[in-house]
Amino acid sequence: MIMKITYPRSEKVYLPGKLFPELRVAMRKVEQVPGTHFADGKKVITPNPDVYVYDTSGPFSDPDMEIDLKKGLPRLREPWILSRGDVEQLPSMTSEYGRLRRADRALDHLRFEHITLPYRAKSGKSITQMAYAKQGIITPEMEYVAIRENMNCAELGIETHITPEFVRQEIAAGRALLPANINHPEVEPMIIGRNFLVKINTNIGNSATTSSIDEEVEKAVWSCKWGGDTLMDLSTGENIHETREWIIRNCPVPVGTVPIYQALEKVGGKAENLSWEIYRDTLIEQCEQGVDYFTIHAGIRRHNVHLADKRLCGIVSRGGSIMSKWCLVHNRESFLYEHFDDICDILAQYDVAVSLGDGLRPGSTYDANDEAQFAELDTMGELVLRAWEKNVQAFIEGPGHVPMHKIKENMERQIEKCHNAPFYTLGPIVTDIAPGYDHITSAIGAAQIGWLGTAMLCYVTPKEHLALPDKEDVRVGVITYKIAAHAADLAKGHPGAQVRDNALSKARYEFRWKDQFDLSLDPERAFGYFHAGRHTDGEYCTMCGPNFCAMRLSRELKGHKNKIETVS
Amino acid sequence: MIMKITYPRSEKVYLPGKLFPELRVAMRKVEQVPGTHFADGKKVITPNPDVYVYDTSGPFSDPDMEIDLKKGLPRLREPWILSRGDVEQLPSMTSEYGRLRRADRALDHLRFEHITLPYRAKSGKSITQMAYAKQGIITPEMEYVAIRENMNCAELGIETHITPEFVRQEIAAGRALLPANINHPEVEPMIIGRNFLVKINTNIGNSATTSSIDEEVEKAVWSCKWGGDTLMDLSTGENIHETREWIIRNCPVPVGTVPIYQALEKVGGKAENLSWEIYRDTLIEQCEQGVDYFTIHAGIRRHNVHLADKRLCGIVSRGGSIMSKWCLVHNRESFLYEHFDDICDILAQYDVAVSLGDGLRPGSTYDANDEAQFAELDTMGELVLRAWEKNVQAFIEGPGHVPMHKIKENMERQIEKCHNAPFYTLGPIVTDIAPGYDHITSAIGAAQIGWLGTAMLCYVTPKEHLALPDKEDVRVGVITYKIAAHAADLAKGHPGAQVRDNALSKARYEFRWKDQFDLSLDPERAFGYFHAGRHTDGEYCTMCGPNFCAMRLSRELKGHKNKIETVS
Repeated sequence: MIMKITYPRSEKVYLPGKLFPELRVAMRKVEQVPGTHFADGKKVITPNPDVYVYDTSGPFSDPDMEIDLKKGLPRLREPWILSRGDVEQLPSMTSEYGRLRRADRALDHLRFEHITLPYRAKSGKSITQMAYAKQGIITPEMEYVAIRENMNCAELGIETHITPEFVRQEIAAGRALLPANINHPEVEPMIIGRNFLVKINTNIGNSATTSSIDEEVEKAVWSCKWGGDTLMDLSTGENIHETREWIIRNCPVPVGTVPIYQALEKVGGKAENLSWEIYRDTLIEQCEQGVDYFTIHAGIRRHNVHLADKRLCGIVSRGGSIMSKWCLVHNRESFLYEHFDDICDILAQYDVAVSLGDGLRPGSTYDANDEAQFAELDTMGELVLRAWEKNVQAFIEGPGHVPMHKIKENMERQIEKCHNAPFYTLGPIVTDIAPGYDHITSAIGAAQIGWLGTAMLCYVTPKEHLALPDKEDVRVGVITYKIAAHAADLAKGHPGAQVRDNALSKARYEFRWKDQFDLSLDPERAFGYFHAGRHTDGEYCTMCGPNFCAMRLSRELKGHKNKIETVS
Repeated sequence: MIMKITYPRSEKVYLPGKLFPELRVAMRKVEQVPGTHFADGKKVITPNPDVYVYDTSGPFSDPDMEIDLKKGLPRLREPWILSRGDVEQLPSMTSEYGRLRRADRALDHLRFEHITLPYRAKSGKSITQMAYAKQGIITPEMEYVAIRENMNCAELGIETHITPEFVRQEIAAGRALLPANINHPEVEPMIIGRNFLVKINTNIGNSATTSSIDEEVEKAVWSCKWGGDTLMDLSTGENIHETREWIIRNCPVPVGTVPIYQALEKVGGKAENLSWEIYRDTLIEQCEQGVDYFTIHAGIRRHNVHLADKRLCGIVSRGGSIMSKWCLVHNRESFLYEHFDDICDILAQYDVAVSLGDGLRPGSTYDANDEAQFAELDTMGELVLRAWEKNVQAFIEGPGHVPMHKIKENMERQIEKCHNAPFYTLGPIVTDIAPGYDHITSAIGAAQIGWLGTAMLCYVTPKEHLALPDKEDVRVGVITYKIAAHAADLAKGHPGAQVRDNALSKARYEFRWKDQFDLSLDPERAFGYFHAGRHTDGEYCTMCGPNFCAMRLSRELKGHKNKIETVS
């Protein structure tokens, strides 16, 4: 199984570090043809600079890299991890379930072949990026993200505040996280925090009714191709363990999961049969496979469950409904809440981050910003401090369905109650009346909340509320969210964010059609539409035809004598 | 040629007026099946009320109405217009060009057959909706829109401030307009103003390189089906005059044009050959055909043209580039500006509204909010007062390409400089890097500026910047903009706007799949996605499968004894 990603007229380039000269920070460099402009009434040909764009496609887009999904990606970070001398390789998987699965010969045909033994922190060692940051240590991962975030803007003379030291400070303060499990050394470091580029997450995963391992791995690579910054594997069907191994070994971006899904499978789908022991074993199983962050719905408290009764749509989070049921059936506090410190102790040993799941997020605009939602947010604020105490990197999940006028309150309240921990929202969807177009209803909300400070946006595909997304849905969902995230980056004034917009606009003005396509988020689609429109290669397109091309007229006028006379 | 529009499980209904009991205000009523909910642990079946939705599809969706595109739509407003006694029917078309076209036997095969003679104000009579409003007269058109805007919300006990008198006041103040040429009696009255539902405009029109009359009429009906509130015919190719006649006679929504396009065709595409006389004849030709509003780029002043020189993308408005060229070649003030009072005198005779075109709108995010754009806005502010002096209804066109953080300034400045005249924006597009997805880049901006007070949003299709839209693009563009407009209505708190969202969300929670589809903006697409996803009709869908359905779990929990104990 071989998979390659190509982008038109793009070169995979690697920038070196300064603190760590051996770093090779991956970017994509888009070439442009020279352009023409008018000066003093004359046509002048000028070269156009290469445009460096953020690249999530990993080794798949490197023509010099041999890709074999059966072997997995190169273990980029392994030397950095080992050189710190604070982790040890275990003799076998710790998780009981993991050992059972590996021993089961009937699963051989499903299994990823080159499984290595897991790493774990040596006893007494604090090995998370947050732990290093708090000690004042800048890791190679931190310098990597600093370089990556700047997209080579220094070459264009654009100033940036994003230095390795700035990255360290943000992680130490908890305002950002760098999700990178020591058992996922294939990951290319990236950072999530409101003082960095807004990131997007894509979800993949089979449900009991559809899709296979092959399809899921293909979707993962596909998501990285279009720009997914992290990937959540939300599988709930058969063979979750094996599917996940394949995905992680071939995934250049951080992988998140919701461990309660697998725990529920283990107890035959009966929420009331869940227990801390089964959940704990699942956490360890996944930590040792290399999951980079877990969504944990520990913010649901026994006494808050009833708050959702007043709602139009009740509880719409899968994890939230499972834990609510558990609390009610047992009439007890949630084991996730009660064992939160134990959870953090486990996560800290592998540098797995916790994403506090919003089990009581609103599922309709009517339910937005209600008591249930905000009660959970308060609990999350308490939990995030407990995570940080144990040097576990943490962020907070947010809604969901929120009309525009209630978005700001979400962001401000989250910052206040959760002590500046990064916010990670699903949309929000700003109206409920457009199933089939919820990538759009949610991108409207996502762009706004991203601008206001949300660090990562969970994508929504056109099939949301209706069916599982296929490949085309994933592509559309990712591009839509790249748009929302980038719009937020522009509005926030991220260093260099405007470079690509300006380059594409200049290409448009100069009728450099190919450059327009190649600089766009989806070059194939842009070219396809243009081509299908019986295009010309001349200085106009089929939208307006030759006589009505404003840009053509405008270019011709630039050097007009009467204008020059007036100006002078 | 017969064309019908159907929506699943919807009934076309007509509400009567109170001031004008003969009014039949068209709406669409969506039926719902009864739902189940839990009360005291028991399952209870309750009926769900009909949901009234705003309907732009006109007679095409009335099963009792005979539709024949060759005959045109019923002339709904003609009795109202005639009963006012202030217009007269002319013995022939006034426009020289119009008469030539009609006399040309070679065009017979293209011609709409049932052309009637045009109406015009009797000498000395002020026949615009604004003139009536200023005199304190509530017209049938005004009551029609008042009823239409409320979507029967009174039946649900929702209070509304939108009364016929309120409509009158808003029109009198210029804060809203009711575009309705006396020669387009087929139009169903609608209103554009920031204290009403946000409207959307769709553009159709062939360019020199593509499409035919049939296709354009079909696109017009198609746009009305999906929810377009007004329609601009931007044709620039052959037979503009005949295409327009077909469209207007079959269009239940107001039609706008950009007369300079046709004027330019008349002078062989040479901007410098344009003259006031040719333009004037074109205005009259189109007034007498029934165009409801004209985009007129009178805001471009000779001395401001050079301001666009500093831009990345120069002038991107077709009308703007044409007029700029004219000004420069002749080294004279624009004839549109110089003859603006004459223009208004013509428009007032037919109640055609003026949409002041933003010829210097920014064509890239880099160019947003620059000197050129704002200089033109100042001129528009001056012109709008001159239009109102002559009782011509007016609104202001806006950008274009604007990053999110610069949107608010656009809206606030427009309100201030243009004296509360309604704003009508194209998007704005919030990033330039996604050709092929500009319906989305622009919907993000459109929702925001709509919330801030823009009265009408001009749609953008996925093919923007690349090619002319086909039918599927029109559909996607319209639905995307209905989303943006509706999101703004929710955020603004329009009376009854939330009703449809709540109904759909309740249907979702109660697994009434058909109701979800039928209440959605695009029932066919929603059902199609669901169906293709190998759906079940049970209480879950393929997204999560039966064991992981949060809503199902949540519904089951609602009556759980342990929850009830805690609450009590």
